[in-house]
Amino acid sequence: MERNFIKIAQDAKNASLKIAEINTEIKNLALCKIAEAFEANKEEIFAANKKDLEEAEKFVQNGEITKATFNRLKLDENKMRDMIQGVRDISNLEDPVGKILFKRELDENLILSKVSCPIGVLGIIFEARPDVISQISSLAIKSSNAVILKGGKESANTNRKILEVINQALASVDGFPENVVQQVFTREDVAKMLECDTYINLIIPRGGNNLVKFIKENTKIPVLGHANGICHIFVDESADINVASKVVVDAKTQYPSACNAVETLLIHRDFKKADELLASLQLEEIKLVSNPEAWDIEYGDKILSYKFVDSLDEAIEHINTYGSGHTDCIITTNVENAEIFMNNVDSAGVYFNVSTRFADGFRYGFGAEVGISTNKTHARGPVGLEGLTIYKYKLVGDGHVVDDYAKGLKHFHHKDI
Amino acid sequence: MERNFIKIAQDAKNASLKIAEINTEIKNLALCKIAEAFEANKEEIFAANKKDLEEAEKFVQNGEITKATFNRLKLDENKMRDMIQGVRDISNLEDPVGKILFKRELDENLILSKVSCPIGVLGIIFEARPDVISQISSLAIKSSNAVILKGGKESANTNRKILEVINQALASVDGFPENVVQQVFTREDVAKMLECDTYINLIIPRGGNNLVKFIKENTKIPVLGHANGICHIFVDESADINVASKVVVDAKTQYPSACNAVETLLIHRDFKKADELLASLQLEEIKLVSNPEAWDIEYGDKILSYKFVDSLDEAIEHINTYGSGHTDCIITTNVENAEIFMNNVDSAGVYFNVSTRFADGFRYGFGAEVGISTNKTHARGPVGLEGLTIYKYKLVGDGHVVDDYAKGLKHFHHKDI
Repeated sequence: MERNFIKIAQDAKNASLKIAEINTEIKNLALCKIAEAFEANKEEIFAANKKDLEEAEKFVQNGEITKATFNRLKLDENKMRDMIQGVRDISNLEDPVGKILFKRELDENLILSKVSCPIGVLGIIFEARPDVISQISSLAIKSSNAVILKGGKESANTNRKILEVINQALASVDGFPENVVQQVFTREDVAKMLECDTYINLIIPRGGNNLVKFIKENTKIPVLGHANGICHIFVDESADINVASKVVVDAKTQYPSACNAVETLLIHRDFKKADELLASLQLEEIKLVSNPEAWDIEYGDKILSYKFVDSLDEAIEHINTYGSGHTDCIITTNVENAEIFMNNVDSAGVYFNVSTRFADGFRYGFGAEVGISTNKTHARGPVGLEGLTIYKYKLVGDGHVVDDYAKGLKHFHHKDI
Repeated sequence: MERNFIKIAQDAKNASLKIAEINTEIKNLALCKIAEAFEANKEEIFAANKKDLEEAEKFVQNGEITKATFNRLKLDENKMRDMIQGVRDISNLEDPVGKILFKRELDENLILSKVSCPIGVLGIIFEARPDVISQISSLAIKSSNAVILKGGKESANTNRKILEVINQALASVDGFPENVVQQVFTREDVAKMLECDTYINLIIPRGGNNLVKFIKENTKIPVLGHANGICHIFVDESADINVASKVVVDAKTQYPSACNAVETLLIHRDFKKADELLASLQLEEIKLVSNPEAWDIEYGDKILSYKFVDSLDEAIEHINTYGSGHTDCIITTNVENAEIFMNNVDSAGVYFNVSTRFADGFRYGFGAEVGISTNKTHARGPVGLEGLTIYKYKLVGDGHVVDDYAKGLKHFHHKDI
């Protein structure tokens, strides 16, 4: 029997208060138990996944879901191995909670500390990739947050089984609270989750642009993510043709459906080797499109919009107008222009002679990634565990009162210690 | 003639891109020019304020506004001096923009830096305190954000004059962009501001609970602030009666209408000197109320709810249930209990033997305060200039492509430098 959403959300809130308090060793033990449980129960998980795949096959035949979605749905030995390794990797990361961000003596025996702490309850809405459950649950546990997951209906059997395995593993860990990882299944639950700002502190959508847009437009809870990835590469007048060609090819073809793949190429009108560059892209089977109506299209395919611009300024203005604030790059040998570009382009990632495909938490060295954010508050760009934390201020004194300072009897000295 | 809101918002966005680029010296010069302009034009500002006060007097007489609101509206020599000093103080603070938060070599010649940068466009909605314009404009300038201000109609003349003086001062500074500080006046403009997530990145309400609640409920733009300040003090079994009495009196009476004033006193049932404590509060003319319907009331007056609890856990649970996540304190001589309290109470400020009135950016040593946030993302507690910034990632290479790493031809070494 499904419980009602408010009860689930309250349980998550209570769990979040409890998990805020458990120590790193218990959290890491919990993660190891999850990894072991996946190993021990993988045949059952594959069996549940097989049921989903059988259903999904019908949807592929009648065109309701694409072959690509079907493939994302499928859990095989390789994905299972990555999933298990992912949990172990997270257990090896530094605990993001309880870090002292500063410590300051405000006055004698009056000590202020700013300490990192979990956000509270995360609402995760994801599409047909059942391995997301494992990844997000592990990130939530490591950062001491509770989580409510809502997966795609195509993977409902797999999701249920994975969550069952996770919760059995967590139940075996002494001192680990209940209800840290919960799951809901219906559209109505999603609607309630998006309204539930009393208990849910952050929504993280994992899926296509339409899902993310829908969520951003239908909740007042902060949403961490990006709807679009309209990334640009600007090839400056002085660009090295080899760097330009190599970087654009990588940014467009290495994984065309990624959000950090390039969608629009801007070329300085005075760049002498423009024809050579465009020819080199066509050789890699990149379809080139020059159409002002395409400036905000995310192809997700080996198609690239291109445009000639008169100046660095025009390139910057184009990017700030049509871009999505994700990742944008300049190819140039002029360091001054590179600096102007990186300072003036208002994006999470501003790159110089480097493929936009580097915009990724693992490549940045964060060890794990919650997602990529184009927000202008809280967390921007690839978000690691730190993005699942906030901080509290602890103030310790021995009977200090403000009145003494207001009357000038005492004075703050604000000394960082 | 008033321009339409979208044009104002677009101008603000463009201004935000320009001010993101100007250096600290120009920003500080601009702030000094504003301070000088206030000095030079203070009689004109007082004259504009007098007009507002004449109007407001009628509203006081017919009961439309309170005497307290009238007093907040009034600009006198003292407030003007504070206002001018406030601008100079902000010019002396460290620039929060352009700080290198980390620098990491991902691989040879592939350098990632995380650099603080402005958020973009701030929307400020404030009630009858015209000095807010000066404070927020200065904070916006120092943090390289553009700002759109909407003040209360009671101070419309003062607000217009102050903004005119600010913008004249800014126009005198070479290289300072136009439209960094703009103002709107109508209710319709507020409605449009709250909808305008294309151009406005953060809303900061400055005013009473109703204003903040209304704004939080009517926008999808991130809001920095707090609707309630239901602060608690828990007097533990082992508390020192002198510390308890002194701290509670300060927290309730030093400035009863402040958001960090205490509203509810929780007393451990085994605290032997409870009667003495309550008597000492009554001596200070604090009215004591014990009524379960009052647990979520913010009195803003010398009234205090109180309740006996059986345990530390009950106190923590009460606070996490009825509190507003603002600032809560334990009075105890038991350090272990203090630690449990500070770790388990889910509030921006968790205090031990200290008045809740210390929750303030100046007292924390931030030099200036944007406001106090009870949010669980971006910024929590007293927010200084840092809360008006986010960061971008700059990645510099020499033609690096992801394909080389995917194929194992190159490897990341992630070395912080």
